[in-house]
Amino acid sequence: MTTRLTARPTGQMLIAGNPVAGTGTEIRGFNPATGQTLEPAYRYGDEAHVDGACAAAAEAFGPYRATTSEQRARFLETVAASIEAIKTELVERAVAESGLPEPRIAGEVGRTTGQLRLFAAVLREGSWNGARIDPAQPDRSPLRRPDIRQREVPLGPVAVFGASNFPLAFSVAGGDTASALAAGCPVVVKAHDAHPGTSELVGAAIARAVAQSGMPAGTFSLLFGSGPGLGVALVADPRIKAVGFTGSRFAGMALVATAAARPEPIPVYAEMSAVNPVFLLDGALAARGAEIGTAFVGSLTMGSGQFCTNPGLVLAVDGPGLEDFLTAAGTALATAAATPMLTPGIAASYAKGVDTLRAVSTEEARGQAAAGETYCQAALFSTDAATFLATDALQAEVFGASSVLVRCADIEEMVAVAAGLDGQLTATVHAEESDYQVAAELLPVLELKAGRILFNGWPTGVEVGHAMVHGGPYPATSDSRTTSVGARAIERFLRPVCYQDVPDALLPSVIADGNPDGVWRRIDGQLTRD
Amino acid sequence: MTTRLTARPTGQMLIAGNPVAGTGTEIRGFNPATGQTLEPAYRYGDEAHVDGACAAAAEAFGPYRATTSEQRARFLETVAASIEAIKTELVERAVAESGLPEPRIAGEVGRTTGQLRLFAAVLREGSWNGARIDPAQPDRSPLRRPDIRQREVPLGPVAVFGASNFPLAFSVAGGDTASALAAGCPVVVKAHDAHPGTSELVGAAIARAVAQSGMPAGTFSLLFGSGPGLGVALVADPRIKAVGFTGSRFAGMALVATAAARPEPIPVYAEMSAVNPVFLLDGALAARGAEIGTAFVGSLTMGSGQFCTNPGLVLAVDGPGLEDFLTAAGTALATAAATPMLTPGIAASYAKGVDTLRAVSTEEARGQAAAGETYCQAALFSTDAATFLATDALQAEVFGASSVLVRCADIEEMVAVAAGLDGQLTATVHAEESDYQVAAELLPVLELKAGRILFNGWPTGVEVGHAMVHGGPYPATSDSRTTSVGARAIERFLRPVCYQDVPDALLPSVIADGNPDGVWRRIDGQLTRD
Repeated sequence: MTTRLTARPTGQMLIAGNPVAGTGTEIRGFNPATGQTLEPAYRYGDEAHVDGACAAAAEAFGPYRATTSEQRARFLETVAASIEAIKTELVERAVAESGLPEPRIAGEVGRTTGQLRLFAAVLREGSWNGARIDPAQPDRSPLRRPDIRQREVPLGPVAVFGASNFPLAFSVAGGDTASALAAGCPVVVKAHDAHPGTSELVGAAIARAVAQSGMPAGTFSLLFGSGPGLGVALVADPRIKAVGFTGSRFAGMALVATAAARPEPIPVYAEMSAVNPVFLLDGALAARGAEIGTAFVGSLTMGSGQFCTNPGLVLAVDGPGLEDFLTAAGTALATAAATPMLTPGIAASYAKGVDTLRAVSTEEARGQAAAGETYCQAALFSTDAATFLATDALQAEVFGASSVLVRCADIEEMVAVAAGLDGQLTATVHAEESDYQVAAELLPVLELKAGRILFNGWPTGVEVGHAMVHGGPYPATSDSRTTSVGARAIERFLRPVCYQDVPDALLPSVIADGNPDGVWRRIDGQLTRD
Repeated sequence: MTTRLTARPTGQMLIAGNPVAGTGTEIRGFNPATGQTLEPAYRYGDEAHVDGACAAAAEAFGPYRATTSEQRARFLETVAASIEAIKTELVERAVAESGLPEPRIAGEVGRTTGQLRLFAAVLREGSWNGARIDPAQPDRSPLRRPDIRQREVPLGPVAVFGASNFPLAFSVAGGDTASALAAGCPVVVKAHDAHPGTSELVGAAIARAVAQSGMPAGTFSLLFGSGPGLGVALVADPRIKAVGFTGSRFAGMALVATAAARPEPIPVYAEMSAVNPVFLLDGALAARGAEIGTAFVGSLTMGSGQFCTNPGLVLAVDGPGLEDFLTAAGTALATAAATPMLTPGIAASYAKGVDTLRAVSTEEARGQAAAGETYCQAALFSTDAATFLATDALQAEVFGASSVLVRCADIEEMVAVAAGLDGQLTATVHAEESDYQVAAELLPVLELKAGRILFNGWPTGVEVGHAMVHGGPYPATSDSRTTSVGARAIERFLRPVCYQDVPDALLPSVIADGNPDGVWRRIDGQLTRD
């Protein structure tokens, strides 16, 4: 099934299937583990490239959205196969550009292709169409009820911004791209500077799949450029109708502002910042405080802590169980090797963030000293609840392996701290059965703060499935009503249209008489496949 | 079932069930049909009233959202019964405050109570919970798959802005309020100045239902105030988590800007402006041009044209059928009586809008002369496609009975005009079978422009059902992904939360083991009631 291909980055962007050299600032991949600069060079695109990609996407939109669910499902599977065909070179390049371990990157390839196949399954299942029919009531008094039917249509071309920390799963062929393509939206990706070669390899794999599947060439383009320059120009382009972004709050909110200031405002789905609180309840600490401490450090330091869901905040009531946790965490941290961060810029921000935390809290433990400037020396700080609530810096995300323990006097204080938190991607509770009453008090608070609540585990690791929510109230994301991971991510790029008394011959098949597509539909509000 | 109550407006706001007198600008209801000013006087609220209503809503939110679907369904039915109990006084007052005919207002009471009961049915059906379960896979390699479940939770207190043109169905107990209450969100309404007495009567009916149903008093409050003053303060209040609005583009976008500038931005669902294009295809004009012309004037002049879905734009290819249409429309318009508009301000804006259209196009026909300054003299203008595309004023909504006919040279020109239109609430096509090929060409264009596409009918008249979309791309609304009418309006006030490995004892019942609520759920993506 998988044909092996030799793939080499060439240093070019891809506009509607054509390799195009940039004209602006030169960038290169950089291996943070070795300090080596990688070939080839890439140059930023300019306004003409944005225009070219958007024009191609707008032209492709009509024919692309007219494809059937089955055609798009096969296309997504072809993209997955096309990525698998270059897996060896892709993993090698992504490891070099990220400094992340090979098994992690190999796993991320699987996650990326798995996401594409999940959306193929979502397309085939058919409920994404949102088919609803309220049949006519010709004899209704005083007025006949018309025949009214509803389905979803795609918004239009989507701009996707690759993330630094998942060079594959949240990048060129990541969840935003997969869900937008599934919805019937052409995609223009702005690659992240941290992994240009990886981006080009994946972009070329998508372009090959576009050609093989007979999709319009403008269905996919890949550009390089700065966020404030090319990125803003892309979001401002009138042909772009929605934006997917994963990155910092500052950059995300800049795109939100750009989108809101357009003559036609458009939605921006920005997944931004979170500290992902972990609540250690008394029973759990008493039963397994040390075990939790060791496991916590595993989650904290994984991938140098460069996860949106990194556990950057721990809350617990003071007591012997908490001391067990701290001792074990301190021991684990002391032996945790320094690991490379994605880019020198991220490492510098991390070092600055840790300095800030040290200035306003107590340093409990550090990992092993950094082997170089791009390395992450993990850190754990502590503070009390009053200081935490009064100090904004303690709630700000420090991207990397850094966490703050808030020592609470009692459960009431812990719940009060929870109620004062900003929006989060995740909230974790460690609890034994004896803690369930406290947990039941905490849960309604956490439901309003986080997109995902998990028990007795760690927030790093986001399952790609039908029930996942990777989202949450601001500032975790710019739109809490959505998820960027999992089946429901497709909904971000759709809007409902209703058809009143439209002749059957002109109706889309998903809402035509006799249910030719065999999908689930709501008839007068009741689900049926008839 | 319905207990008759005598209801009289007292001139007060309602904060968490308590009548409260305002402190600011004095306003009174005004009968535009008679020119009579109505008693009692109302005064605008101030910041303390906003604070009181929001504090009460925030306090109510926890217990209110903890009610079951069945409890909220009964509450909504109690609101409906409570409104029906004062129907005589309510209709009398709303007719006086709007100048709209009694049958129209009586019908609107039914529409309003029907909406409340629709959401009761939506709550009982249960799919609004969005229940999804991806069961654990303990033996998955390399990592166990956790148990992941998803459901929807309400956003929090919602601010609702009553509309001028539907004093009942889009006002205090209208679709925004009904859907927000259904979702589990307390509501703070800012009443529209055009119908203060109607607003108070309905608000008091809701407050009685809150008390009778044992809901927290802060579940509902009603304030009076200016849009830029109290309205903006309400949207800026940190306890408000979403906004529903129906009104002008200017006012709607001001609220959008306020919401976006908050420390925590929130969604605004603003239903704003549209000209609702009507496409008359050749076969239809040939078969029934005159009939369409007469029916068009009926839709145009209904309720003085004060509908969001008023047909303000007609497109057709020049020919004898179009002349038949114009002759019949001219005849019907010439005998159309002038009718009162909702407020002197709306009448003045209408007169100004008509003057603007007259300056840039050809006047084809007018209705009978206005009997007074608050009366609407219906108007039909015409222009050619090139002028239309080059003149912004011809695409701007003139609120009231006014429409512009665009004479197109051929179908290509008609499709080009359609493609150049702004977003719309509706697009109407009149077509015979011989027109289906042209219609098929037009439909993909209209799908991207409008929330509702209708054939051989008129856009005025919006069914309240499961498949309705009352929405559309900007500037028709501020969020094209939603509808403000029909069952799916509830989705605007919900966000998904997922629960990973949460013990069954702590799970919400809609996603608990064994499906105790008996709702439709997705298990590994497949719908089931098991």
